[in-house]
Amino acid sequence: MSKPRKTPRPKAVTPKGFRDYFGADVSGRAAMLETIRAVYHRYGFDALETSAVETVEALGKFLPDVDRPNEGVFAWQESEEDGKGDWLALRYDLTAPLARVYAQHRNDLPTPYRRYAMGPVWRNEKPGPGRFRQFYQCDADTVGSASVAADAEICAMLADTLEAVGIERGDYVVRVNNRKVLNGVLETMGVQDAGQRDAVLRTIDKFDKVGEAGVRELLTTGRKDASGAFIDGVGLSDAQAAPVLAFLTSKAESADQTLENLRGAVGESATGAEGVTELEQIAALLDSQGYGPDRIVIDPSVVRGLGYYTGPVYEAELTFDILDEKGRKRQFGSVAGGGRYDDLVKRFIGQAVPATGVSIGVDRLLAALHAKGRAGTEEAGPVVVTVMDRNRMADYQAMAAELRQAGIRAEVYLGNPKNFGNQLKYADKRNSPVAVIAGSEEFERGVVQIKDLVLGAQIAQNATLEEWKERPSQFEAPRADLLARVREIVESRRE
Amino acid sequence: MSKPRKTPRPKAVTPKGFRDYFGADVSGRAAMLETIRAVYHRYGFDALETSAVETVEALGKFLPDVDRPNEGVFAWQESEEDGKGDWLALRYDLTAPLARVYAQHRNDLPTPYRRYAMGPVWRNEKPGPGRFRQFYQCDADTVGSASVAADAEICAMLADTLEAVGIERGDYVVRVNNRKVLNGVLETMGVQDAGQRDAVLRTIDKFDKVGEAGVRELLTTGRKDASGAFIDGVGLSDAQAAPVLAFLTSKAESADQTLENLRGAVGESATGAEGVTELEQIAALLDSQGYGPDRIVIDPSVVRGLGYYTGPVYEAELTFDILDEKGRKRQFGSVAGGGRYDDLVKRFIGQAVPATGVSIGVDRLLAALHAKGRAGTEEAGPVVVTVMDRNRMADYQAMAAELRQAGIRAEVYLGNPKNFGNQLKYADKRNSPVAVIAGSEEFERGVVQIKDLVLGAQIAQNATLEEWKERPSQFEAPRADLLARVREIVESRRE
Repeated sequence: MSKPRKTPRPKAVTPKGFRDYFGADVSGRAAMLETIRAVYHRYGFDALETSAVETVEALGKFLPDVDRPNEGVFAWQESEEDGKGDWLALRYDLTAPLARVYAQHRNDLPTPYRRYAMGPVWRNEKPGPGRFRQFYQCDADTVGSASVAADAEICAMLADTLEAVGIERGDYVVRVNNRKVLNGVLETMGVQDAGQRDAVLRTIDKFDKVGEAGVRELLTTGRKDASGAFIDGVGLSDAQAAPVLAFLTSKAESADQTLENLRGAVGESATGAEGVTELEQIAALLDSQGYGPDRIVIDPSVVRGLGYYTGPVYEAELTFDILDEKGRKRQFGSVAGGGRYDDLVKRFIGQAVPATGVSIGVDRLLAALHAKGRAGTEEAGPVVVTVMDRNRMADYQAMAAELRQAGIRAEVYLGNPKNFGNQLKYADKRNSPVAVIAGSEEFERGVVQIKDLVLGAQIAQNATLEEWKERPSQFEAPRADLLARVREIVESRRE
Repeated sequence: MSKPRKTPRPKAVTPKGFRDYFGADVSGRAAMLETIRAVYHRYGFDALETSAVETVEALGKFLPDVDRPNEGVFAWQESEEDGKGDWLALRYDLTAPLARVYAQHRNDLPTPYRRYAMGPVWRNEKPGPGRFRQFYQCDADTVGSASVAADAEICAMLADTLEAVGIERGDYVVRVNNRKVLNGVLETMGVQDAGQRDAVLRTIDKFDKVGEAGVRELLTTGRKDASGAFIDGVGLSDAQAAPVLAFLTSKAESADQTLENLRGAVGESATGAEGVTELEQIAALLDSQGYGPDRIVIDPSVVRGLGYYTGPVYEAELTFDILDEKGRKRQFGSVAGGGRYDDLVKRFIGQAVPATGVSIGVDRLLAALHAKGRAGTEEAGPVVVTVMDRNRMADYQAMAAELRQAGIRAEVYLGNPKNFGNQLKYADKRNSPVAVIAGSEEFERGVVQIKDLVLGAQIAQNATLEEWKERPSQFEAPRADLLARVREIVESRRE
């Protein structure tokens, strides 16, 4: 009678919405983060790294009296002894921690405080295909500057960063708008009620999909959608709807014309006029630095979801087509965004602190480079020193050490050496450029066999007999020449 | 009558046991991680990055029937819809995720699977001074190799890594032991009962503190400690205690003598003999590669806390003295450790998979370098282009852009420019090497003022009048020479 197992084996699975990254995916992201970091640093931003964990109170998305405040974030309650029962949560972005840091350390920080931050953030959302609950952001913010020069600088830096990571000019555009313009439009429309205001904002977001006529219907009496279902309108009059339609259709060939159209859309609103003036200043600053409309444009359709923006908002969009999972062409879309948020620090200290900053979605940007075929998916593996004779382990290790000391990635095969075929299969799986082979006969004669694995694979695929003879993929060399001969092969691979 | 505030302001504080890292602390750690990564990579290890979040089941420290399994980890329960109410937790190390990854992906991974991983881990422990609940680890493991060459390689790599990050030879030692030797000793002692076995292991850990006589007392009849309190003994006979005492005192001048002493301590135990043989092989491999006892030693006192080790265990210790918070000299102690764990993957697949690996405590290693004065604590700030005339913002930005394009870190002052003194204070706080100054008069004459801030500070401190005259810390230059003159100063700072 077999004994029943007491506890079933644990399942070896990543939690839903999380994933593992291997090899080139990890190093590719690390290289991109380093490239972005270098640009941010050169612009004068300093590093800041906060913990993954914040108090739910500091993150501030949630009411403290909710029983289990984990909608949107991963949250848990501290035990009474350690943390007085505080609710803690994983950060959902890098901006909320920055606001907390600035409020906490403001007396010791320079003003303005310019910092960059890179790292994962977590969202407790329903996972779906391609939607992950942990992803990387890479932010730069200037806290304590009310100048639009700070906004303009971030837009310029965003363009520089995209080019630095390999997005060519013409393949991206940074679009700039200003929340004050939109607020001016709402003022002119006479929309006071918060619910109605939100409904108008949601409708503006649909402009890309339903067009001018569709937005007019949605703002007023309602609209039949493609399926025939009737969507209730917001209930505005045609006159009320006019400014928002003027706003949405204000984008013109030139920035000057766009700005003039916006002046019309905001009517008598002082806030709106201020917003247009700021956009004008940003456009002038960028223009004088050579960031023309091929890179950065004023675009009134940029709304951006987050409610906390108070002034200029900006978004970087990749403009090339990719094929989606169903093989349909579509634009890649947004990879970065940000704007001015003057009230985030106020939550803590009761005093508004002007701030502006950008967040790059690093994983999306990597996916874009992959889609364009501009990101490496394979990494060169190590030179594999195979094991023909277990008792010669020290000699094999000495070979690997010699190669490493010369900066060549190398290792001794550490699996069971019995089946030599498995060793070559291993080298193949690791994408190794070279296998080194030495048995007792080679040791006696003071030589090694060197197998050029990349050439070997090429020859196997398409070489003629003459080429095969001329450039053999495996050859013998004196032990003393091991390093030189391996280096030749490895360096030719890099060309 | 003032309106009562509805919700009190949130507190701007890091949760207990967490902290923020600024500037040089962040870049110093990034530089160290990159140095370690390069060594691991050169040894043939591939990158792996898992999520911060695992199922509690996969982490496997906890019983699934515990109501709230968050002792030791930060854990929370998924909602029923999204995750079927699974318990999730932040990883507490990088080894448990590796075991899960290997079990999950083993059909696609090479065998052996050699991976490195770097990142934060989280421990839900009572925070204390200098004890943080998030810290960095940097691991390398070989999964699927039973060869002691894999263990020896990790020890050699650990020594190389410590030297690569700036710990000089002689300031560290890698100590190697083998769990099988200890198991052999326990076998020889006839200790079968698990509770008694644990008591013996705990006693061995006290050897450093109480010495040979103290351990003998604790293993047998008990001992009066320094305060006069009586500690009960484990209750072994003197004959039973003898092998463990032989084991603890087996370290000799030479590795050969130590190994001979260990052979004596394990008596007739086959497991013990196997352990000693493995140590012998490791010592021989390392010796032939030039890792002598000045770097790596066989040391029976290495036990290591984790219960999962099954063979060789190793630990890197820094041997220099530092001053503790009370100004007392003490040794810095352990900064890395690891060993062979053949059963971690077995939890998932029911089949033992031999594995060995090391974990470097990066934050402790950084603290050690700080204590030795070998880690930078200040970073050079950006060149600050000051703002004398708000209408010239585009010109100031052009200056900063020109410097950046030449690779020089630079920014325009973005705070309120009204008070010029604040601008220089800002540059000072940012540790800037240079401030650039240009008002309308300078623009008219096509010149800029360049202020060498480091030299200025030096002169202010200790220059004679002659020196002051000879090398002024502020000078005028044609606008066209801005880059060249700033570069001179910045480059002289680097020397």
